[in-house]
Amino acid sequence: MDKQAMKQAILAAKKAKGLRWDHIAGEINMSPVWTATCCLGEASATEEIAQKITAVLDLGDDVADALTECPMKGQWLDRGIPNDPMLYRFYEILSVFGPGIKDYVHEEFGDGIMSAIDFMVDVEREENPKGDRVKIVMNGKFLPYVRW
Amino acid sequence: MDKQAMKQAILAAKKAKGLRWDHIAGEINMSPVWTATCCLGEASATEEIAQKITAVLDLGDDVADALTECPMKGQWLDRGIPNDPMLYRFYEILSVFGPGIKDYVHEEFGDGIMSAIDFMVDVEREENPKGDRVKIVMNGKFLPYVRW
Amino acid sequence: MDKQAMKQAILAAKKAKGLRWDHIAGEINMSPVWTATCCLGEASATEEIAQKITAVLDLGDDVADALTECPMKGQWLDRGIPNDPMLYRFYEILSVFGPGIKDYVHEEFGDGIMSAIDFMVDVEREENPKGDRVKIVMNGKFLPYVRW
Amino acid sequence: MDKQAMKQAILAAKKAKGLRWDHIAGEINMSPVWTATCCLGEASATEEIAQKITAVLDLGDDVADALTECPMKGQWLDRGIPNDPMLYRFYEILSVFGPGIKDYVHEEFGDGIMSAIDFMVDVEREENPKGDRVKIVMNGKFLPYVRW
Amino acid sequence: MDKQAMKQAILAAKKAKGLRWDHIAGEINMSPVWTATCCLGEASATEEIAQKITAVLDLGDDVADALTECPMKGQWLDRGIPNDPMLYRFYEILSVFGPGIKDYVHEEFGDGIMSAIDFMVDVEREENPKGDRVKIVMNGKFLPYVRW
Amino acid sequence: MDKQAMKQAILAAKKAKGLRWDHIAGEINMSPVWTATCCLGEASATEEIAQKITAVLDLGDDVADALTECPMKGQWLDRGIPNDPMLYRFYEILSVFGPGIKDYVHEEFGDGIMSAIDFMVDVEREENPKGDRVKIVMNGKFLPYVRW
Amino acid sequence: MDKQAMKQAILAAKKAKGLRWDHIAGEINMSPVWTATCCLGEASATEEIAQKITAVLDLGDDVADALTECPMKGQWLDRGIPNDPMLYRFYEILSVFGPGIKDYVHEEFGDGIMSAIDFMVDVEREENPKGDRVKIVMNGKFLPYVRW
Amino acid sequence: MDKQAMKQAILAAKKAKGLRWDHIAGEINMSPVWTATCCLGEASATEEIAQKITAVLDLGDDVADALTECPMKGQWLDRGIPNDPMLYRFYEILSVFGPGIKDYVHEEFGDGIMSAIDFMVDVEREENPKGDRVKIVMNGKFLPYVRW
Amino acid sequence: MDKQAMKQAILAAKKAKGLRWDHIAGEINMSPVWTATCCLGEASATEEIAQKITAVLDLGDDVADALTECPMKGQWLDRGIPNDPMLYRFYEILSVFGPGIKDYVHEEFGDGIMSAIDFMVDVEREENPKGDRVKIVMNGKFLPYVRW
Amino acid sequence: MDKQAMKQAILAAKKAKGLRWDHIAGEINMSPVWTATCCLGEASATEEIAQKITAVLDLGDDVADALTECPMKGQWLDRGIPNDPMLYRFYEILSVFGPGIKDYVHEEFGDGIMSAIDFMVDVEREENPKGDRVKIVMNGKFLPYVRW
Repeated sequence: MDKQAMKQAILAAKKAKGLRWDHIAGEINMSPVWTATCCLGEASATEEIAQKITAVLDLGDDVADALTECPMKGQWLDRGIPNDPMLYRFYEILSVFGPGIKDYVHEEFGDGIMSAIDFMVDVEREENPKGDRVKIVMNGKFLPYVRW
Repeated sequence: MDKQAMKQAILAAKKAKGLRWDHIAGEINMSPVWTATCCLGEASATEEIAQKITAVLDLGDDVADALTECPMKGQWLDRGIPNDPMLYRFYEILSVFGPGIKDYVHEEFGDGIMSAIDFMVDVEREENPKGDRVKIVMNGKFLPYVRW
Repeated sequence: MDKQAMKQAILAAKKAKGLRWDHIAGEINMSPVWTATCCLGEASATEEIAQKITAVLDLGDDVADALTECPMKGQWLDRGIPNDPMLYRFYEILSVFGPGIKDYVHEEFGDGIMSAIDFMVDVEREENPKGDRVKIVMNGKFLPYVRW
Repeated sequence: MDKQAMKQAILAAKKAKGLRWDHIAGEINMSPVWTATCCLGEASATEEIAQKITAVLDLGDDVADALTECPMKGQWLDRGIPNDPMLYRFYEILSVFGPGIKDYVHEEFGDGIMSAIDFMVDVEREENPKGDRVKIVMNGKFLPYVRW
Repeated sequence: MDKQAMKQAILAAKKAKGLRWDHIAGEINMSPVWTATCCLGEASATEEIAQKITAVLDLGDDVADALTECPMKGQWLDRGIPNDPMLYRFYEILSVFGPGIKDYVHEEFGDGIMSAIDFMVDVEREENPKGDRVKIVMNGKFLPYVRW
Repeated sequence: MDKQAMKQAILAAKKAKGLRWDHIAGEINMSPVWTATCCLGEASATEEIAQKITAVLDLGDDVADALTECPMKGQWLDRGIPNDPMLYRFYEILSVFGPGIKDYVHEEFGDGIMSAIDFMVDVEREENPKGDRVKIVMNGKFLPYVRW
Repeated sequence: MDKQAMKQAILAAKKAKGLRWDHIAGEINMSPVWTATCCLGEASATEEIAQKITAVLDLGDDVADALTECPMKGQWLDRGIPNDPMLYRFYEILSVFGPGIKDYVHEEFGDGIMSAIDFMVDVEREENPKGDRVKIVMNGKFLPYVRW
Repeated sequence: MDKQAMKQAILAAKKAKGLRWDHIAGEINMSPVWTATCCLGEASATEEIAQKITAVLDLGDDVADALTECPMKGQWLDRGIPNDPMLYRFYEILSVFGPGIKDYVHEEFGDGIMSAIDFMVDVEREENPKGDRVKIVMNGKFLPYVRW
Repeated sequence: MDKQAMKQAILAAKKAKGLRWDHIAGEINMSPVWTATCCLGEASATEEIAQKITAVLDLGDDVADALTECPMKGQWLDRGIPNDPMLYRFYEILSVFGPGIKDYVHEEFGDGIMSAIDFMVDVEREENPKGDRVKIVMNGKFLPYVRW
Repeated sequence: MDKQAMKQAILAAKKAKGLRWDHIAGEINMSPVWTATCCLGEASATEEIAQKITAVLDLGDDVADALTECPMKGQWLDRGIPNDPMLYRFYEILSVFGPGIKDYVHEEFGDGIMSAIDFMVDVEREENPKGDRVKIVMNGKFLPYVRW
């Protein structure tokens, strides 16, 4: 079973059971964004987590197996720039605020990057009388460039 | 004076005075990332803020004027996908974690987007014995799609 | 049922019944462009609207379900620039009149954008003895950039 | 004098005089968006209009001459997809609402297009207690495909 | 029946009957290039023409129906620049002779375009002892830009 | 003197003298489109023609020299797809009518192409009470593929 | 039978019979590269040659028919730049040696091109004690640009 | 002196002296295509050859120096696909005949490539009463893939 | 059996038997990276190696046959720039360290390249108390440019 | 002084003094590839190293300053795929051997990447009677994906 079939099976089971990502995440003791990312095929699970996910969804070992495979990541983004408005906003943030963030990080940490591997991201709702807000917290290890 | 010349003038004055973005931001009562974004030409200042920035840097009215102009944003990203490793990581985060975030936001908020205009982003250092971490907090208003 | 299958089912039923978008829109009390956009899979309906649409077209709950899902939008435009002449004209309008509109909006409203989310668009026929005209009215909330 | 130099001269004079596009448009009896489009080098003026524009701005015959030339249009959009958020929203509107508009126009008018040449576009502010709105009215002749 | 299936059905029937585009065009009183364009799915027919085409080819109402639909045009050219040598030559003509034609048209007609909608194109063989020549005659209405 | 400088010199002299391409073409006994193409740097002249062109325009030997050089052609079209509406229409014609023309040419002439080298193109005004029309006549040798 | 199916049928038969392109070419009195090009669907055969090819391979009239059709050429190269190392080398040769060849051809022949239609290409093995060499001989008619 | 300036200096001197690539090549005992390639900045010379080239052209040591540098090759081809018709034909040959050549080479030599480094290319005029022909002979070492 | 089917068959058998690439490589006396490359369809095997691979995996002659075919290589990378983070890092290394490596190689070896054909690459784990490291050793013959 | 000017100054001084990267690297106790990378503007130096580099080359503090700045990396690669043959080979290695390396690394280390930041690369000459070889050793920390 490849990642595409796995994703379809999970989404169908999730819909049939009327579950949400945060329910599933709660059952398996992981965060909702990671759980969604893994079930959509962009991350890999340990065997233990894979067993838990398929238990919650009443799915078989082939799905659990597929969850543990290391995916070829990012294939959905095959046009380079995403058209979907929700996803495009991240591209726009990079476009408008990227240079300022880069400069500030270099001033604070020196030459290097924020890791996107040793990295976590969470999404929260922030209630606000003028309209609730989406709060996204990214947390990645700073990796300094080696000079050798 | 166009935005490009303004940026060069500001970076030269900032270097000559040995200032950092957070120093300037502190002087003008704004956040460091916004201050850097505006001085690099990707955002526009009010006249009052523009006067404060040029006062801190001992720069003239032509720079203040340029700071208030609405820029053609994102021109640095003319290749579509950024090559710089620090900036590329945001593209990679979109590529790997974007679909999971999108799905989770839709489940929590319905169909719509996180605004990148009614939006703030801050960067913090999180101390960690295994290596300090970069924490980026994005905060944007949720905008639901109108149905009419 | 995914959005692609939903769209095919709706187009087939609409053709079999000899309906037009404005007929369907009239039945469900929505505007024709939004109704077409939703049925073509680029917008999502509330459950109530989805029930009304499928009632008009004698379609089942799987179609109604699919209508309420938040789509991955804009996938038809995978080449970046549309070749279809009717659709290309919008790209050409952006290309020729975009900079003038941007400048005028900034002068009138300040730095920010016209929202494409808190947004409505209608199409009307304007009768004209030299040849009827297409009138497209876009109406989007102005969103000013936050400075923080 | 080429279009680029003409545009710089006009923008400098306009700024020095503290004029806005709607002021200039009022003086020359044209619409603001067209006036901005022409002064930014994306449209050409008649000799009479060119004389009026340069009279308002106290500019010379070389600017008037340049205003009458037929430009190579759309060169600013050399990356295909615009990064600037204000301009990108038009691309997003095409991406999300384009197919619905196309289908509706074909149903109403038959096979053909809305002209982007025999075309006018105006921008208005619509006051609204929840935040003012940008109203963009496009008006183009419907051109049916010839069958021969 | 979609345009792709329609095209396959027409090409198969045309081959089985040993017909050429000019034969079919003669039967239906239209020009050969338009007839081919329509049968290949890049143009739409009136119901009357659609009936005539399917009568010539002994095809059913589903094909006639599909012939009358307004197509999403130009989808074959999804790579931007065509590789096929016969089709590439048109791109090369645009590349080499385009600027000269543009300038000449503007001098003769003013700012505007040759319509590609109110437009006809015919292909003829010109006999020549050194090798016959392809003569392509394009005829499109000149559309002047509106100034408003 | 390179082609770019040559073009600027010719356009300036042409403007100063108030000439049009067809006037110059008449003086040198060539067609207007070819004359414009050559003066814009997309074709090369013989020495005799180059002398005639510079005589008409009172330009020096460096311009004549540059006119005879074989250009690196098509460099203006560096974005692949032209944004200028007048030039884009040729791309659109290729996109919509290209497949029909290709098929018709193969039926009439066999496998091969219309040459874009042994090729002439002329533009004429066709008067028409509903609006004058642009008539473009392309004439290229048919080149059959060799089989060896 | 389309070109893709034709190609699969030919490759399967060729493999089953243990033939090489030069064997088949020898049987039908054509060159090996042309024979391979035609059987891979990038060229068209005369009916006589098509009959000979299918006779050698024991294939039916549907394959012979498909061999005579004029293909939409170059579709395999849909990414613009080929990734396959053997094919990429031709792109690299164009990139490194193209300008020198162009200049030399113009000096020797004047403005024009080497035809890729009235064109033959052969591949030979050149034995060499340091490692055999691939010799590719291209032979195309020089086509001078018309000036009209 | 960089390669761009070197190229300009060489082309100016060559023109002033009325030399052709084959004259210069004859003086320095190299082939004309290589000589042109090197002088246009796409190859590097030994010091001895560089001295000979500058001697023929009466140019200084800075040009000789620049001739010996290893260039960043292929920068002229920055659009991916060349627009110039003479150069495009090589791309077209790759597109149409590439797969056949690849298959034939693999059958004859096994898996590997024709080197574009251990490689020579010559251009000759082949006289022909129907029009002279360009003969291009490429000769590259076959490099088999290592299996390890 | 084409390369895609071959790859699926091999991956399924490998998974069913619980083998790793280094186990298979050990059995057939080849290196693990080459073995994986060949089984994934990017390299070709000799008949002897193909027999050994299929023996280890209990697969048939059709798989062995497919293993010996020369593949159209690199087709997975059809977007130009890989999105997968593990694969992207090689692109990033080229982007950041490529110019330095190029310059150093030219200084040490002269004008030419490191072959990617007469080439081997191995991957090793380097144990390290701060976190194990991936060591990749590339070894390719230096190929000097011919001057002829 | 920006990175571009810094690079020119360093290359000019290095040439004037007849130094090689390994000489400079030896003087400053760093590796040659890193030294070249930093001097070409793709990496940043500490102040101490910057002082040493400028001391070796007799350059001023403005160069030292520029050496310490964090660069916008990878800007030379603005076409996406490099044309230069030496640099292209790294892209080809990614294209052909990338999937095999990815799979092998995942089998050995689990899901994650080889860091391109905590990363070193060295180039060595390996003498070989059949032609010397380029040996490139890459060494990067393995970074496992976090699951949270």
